[in-house]
Amino acid sequence: MLGRTYETQNCSASRSLEVVGERWSLLIIRDALFRGMSRFSEFQRSLGVAPNVLAARLQGFVQSGLMELSPQAVGSEPSRYLLTEKGRDLAPVIVALTDWGDRWIAPEGPPIVFRHSDCAGGVRQVMVCADCEATVAAAEFEACPGPGARRSMSA
Amino acid sequence: MLGRTYETQNCSASRSLEVVGERWSLLIIRDALFRGMSRFSEFQRSLGVAPNVLAARLQGFVQSGLMELSPQAVGSEPSRYLLTEKGRDLAPVIVALTDWGDRWIAPEGPPIVFRHSDCAGGVRQVMVCADCEATVAAAEFEACPGPGARRSMSA
Repeated sequence: MLGRTYETQNCSASRSLEVVGERWSLLIIRDALFRGMSRFSEFQRSLGVAPNVLAARLQGFVQSGLMELSPQAVGSEPSRYLLTEKGRDLAPVIVALTDWGDRWIAPEGPPIVFRHSDCAGGVRQVMVCADCEATVAAAEFEACPGPGARRSMSA
Repeated sequence: MLGRTYETQNCSASRSLEVVGERWSLLIIRDALFRGMSRFSEFQRSLGVAPNVLAARLQGFVQSGLMELSPQAVGSEPSRYLLTEKGRDLAPVIVALTDWGDRWIAPEGPPIVFRHSDCAGGVRQVMVCADCEATVAAAEFEACPGPGARRSMSA
């Protein structure tokens, strides 16, 4: 975790990056979400990341509530790191990064596609207006102060 | 940029993180996208990041085509870093991070909200199925090999 790197920022994106912005973090979450991985050895084989880095990330995820450790099983069965609801809820972040990469840096086409479990249709991420229900393009919305804005920043 | 940190990964999310996964990157993009910033001094004031780090990020963005430098203006006017279409297209990544932070780590409520330029309605990000047109929850889709999958990974 980046800890308080971004502490001057009153912004949910920067707070999120304090939890999942460190190197390898989102790829560990990706493997847990979309490849069913839960064991230290699985993540390490998938990512080739240094064991001490992986251990720090997984421990951080448990501390920040993205994962929880399975009860220690009998015998030599290793612990499993299981995504919590808070961790699984990062799926849209992974999808947004994947979609952008597919559009801009996937010369051979998308390496993976997301499919709807019900009908196997392709799943895409869109922005919609809660009021007029229109699909909203990137240039058609703006950021405004919300309920949690600090007075000095909402001016 | 992380360079080839994730080179063993044939995955658009990891490729995206090689371009925007380094510390401060996505907050610089956020400031350019949603706060209209384009000058070195503006980003530095907003983020409080070390000048050498900021310079490296902006230079990396120009190299990877997320930003382009405005033509040098007359006199002492400093250069402006302007988002390209590729850079602006990162908006859904910022929105996804913001939404997650709003849901899980915004005890005082969302610091900012995204509003539709047309009607000022709140904008939210959803996943939809291109086939059956249903809105798809995070647990209702899966990752499958796509056209750009390597044979060894699509097995």
